[in-house]
Amino acid sequence: MEPEPGPGPGRWGPAACVLTGASRGFGRSLARLLAPRLGEGSLLVLLARSAAPLAELAAEVRAGGSGLRVECLAADLGCEQGLRRAAAALREVLPAAPPGRLLLVNNAGNNAPPPPPGPPALRPAGAAGLGPRRPSLGPAAAEPRLDPCFGCQERTEPSSLGDVSKSFLDLTDPDEINSYFAFNVTSALCLTSTALQAFGKRPGSSRTVVNISSLCAVKPFKNWALYCSGKASRDMMFQVLALEEPDVRVLNYAPGPLDTDMQLLARTKTGDPAMRQYFQSLQESGQLIDCTASAQKLVTLLEEDTFCSGAHVDFYDI
Amino acid sequence: MEPEPGPGPGRWGPAACVLTGASRGFGRSLARLLAPRLGEGSLLVLLARSAAPLAELAAEVRAGGSGLRVECLAADLGCEQGLRRAAAALREVLPAAPPGRLLLVNNAGNNAPPPPPGPPALRPAGAAGLGPRRPSLGPAAAEPRLDPCFGCQERTEPSSLGDVSKSFLDLTDPDEINSYFAFNVTSALCLTSTALQAFGKRPGSSRTVVNISSLCAVKPFKNWALYCSGKASRDMMFQVLALEEPDVRVLNYAPGPLDTDMQLLARTKTGDPAMRQYFQSLQESGQLIDCTASAQKLVTLLEEDTFCSGAHVDFYDI
Repeated sequence: MEPEPGPGPGRWGPAACVLTGASRGFGRSLARLLAPRLGEGSLLVLLARSAAPLAELAAEVRAGGSGLRVECLAADLGCEQGLRRAAAALREVLPAAPPGRLLLVNNAGNNAPPPPPGPPALRPAGAAGLGPRRPSLGPAAAEPRLDPCFGCQERTEPSSLGDVSKSFLDLTDPDEINSYFAFNVTSALCLTSTALQAFGKRPGSSRTVVNISSLCAVKPFKNWALYCSGKASRDMMFQVLALEEPDVRVLNYAPGPLDTDMQLLARTKTGDPAMRQYFQSLQESGQLIDCTASAQKLVTLLEEDTFCSGAHVDFYDI
Repeated sequence: MEPEPGPGPGRWGPAACVLTGASRGFGRSLARLLAPRLGEGSLLVLLARSAAPLAELAAEVRAGGSGLRVECLAADLGCEQGLRRAAAALREVLPAAPPGRLLLVNNAGNNAPPPPPGPPALRPAGAAGLGPRRPSLGPAAAEPRLDPCFGCQERTEPSSLGDVSKSFLDLTDPDEINSYFAFNVTSALCLTSTALQAFGKRPGSSRTVVNISSLCAVKPFKNWALYCSGKASRDMMFQVLALEEPDVRVLNYAPGPLDTDMQLLARTKTGDPAMRQYFQSLQESGQLIDCTASAQKLVTLLEEDTFCSGAHVDFYDI
């Protein structure tokens, strides 16, 4: 039997971890659990749209561990420029990352949209960021460093859930649908392929890719056409990766109905009244899952490392 | 037991049928089987990228039936302007379509890319087309009528299969992935929602939507990450439609390995040698399926109308 995961540093040996959607909810909980497991010399790359909460999280996990390098990248993965910046940053840092282990967790797209931004904020001075260290990426380098992504201020808010007030029949705008898939599917594919290429095959190293999936990848829900089809698409994409790369461990992890802003949207905005009621009842009956409890199950899955590569594993399965 | 479908006109009564990807392969075969089943006053809308083969097909099916109105729309569903034109055309013709039955078959994305186009050709004079009858759609109306889609001549060829010479790790370009999903997923969602809205709910009428799916929607294949994830995405999307609209009949039909240009690409271009060999062996052992045979099975499924709405039904299941 596996020992209980302990909080001591060094448990995993030196590793490179990349976590998207790290600033809130499940991602933040996972970062807090992962950081103390990463051995001396490890690299933890935290990606999210908003710089300030990322910097806060980085400061917290740095304080809790030793010998851990934490890098933050504020990038909007729903805009092409943000995605390209994030990919460029991974290409920069991963080749020199510790050789033992790569863990990439594709969690972006599992938070509700953040509150509407105020006026563009300058990135806080001293906040950790890959941006300043990376090579010039064109015009952005000459502009003030905006939060969260150069050139994307006017874009529609990226959405993880999609507009669940709409039914399938209301989804007639190509822009809305294309934006949804760009943020929720394209970014996960591009960052995964980029990270695996940048880290490379290294003798004796392990590489694990996690797709934060959902019950919605395998079960349709009314008013959730975009979310369900995006999640189904991601699950399948990562199944293909598992087939193609037998030495990469691939996991589609469905974290359960998390007690986050996304569930708040689900129970207040879902167009179908019965569905709203269902989500409401999940909350009222205390069935929503604490992010840390679900992140802990994922960490246990990773430590046991007995899952079938490419499998869809649900919080409730284990 | 159902009688064998006969070729006589009027079998289905007046209907409105919309068929995308109609100019070649499975779509063309299906159009030829459907046309003689459509009763007096029916409307058959044929969509595809290339005007000339559409016009040819329209002439053929008009000659074989009586009282059937055939409309062709040459539009590149992979470019937003083409998709918007196609949707506008459906909004124009479907409200006045025969009330008895709506059948929409989302087949685009099941042909290999057409041969590289020569210089832009003027739409053949006299070719049937919705374009000339539709209201002005802005700049396009003032430009020469190009084939197949105004403003899209410089765009990358839309691809149904994706570049199967690439592995998952080669898929690092957001443009390539976004274009793939725009053509293969967004267009199917937009045209379906638009067609159902435009036809509307009519007392006593039936509405059926078919998604031409694939084994790849439920099973991963090496080098086919885009195709598999696009098909998985579509299947799920149409499952959501089936849930939301219980009076719409929804079918995800996997037509089997068709003897088309797509299989030619599969057996010559797939990056993985074992996969190429597998597709090669399908051909050599005569296991590729004739488009008409598969289209006939779909027609039988539609006539029997006993499938569970939202189900994935494979050629080999029946």
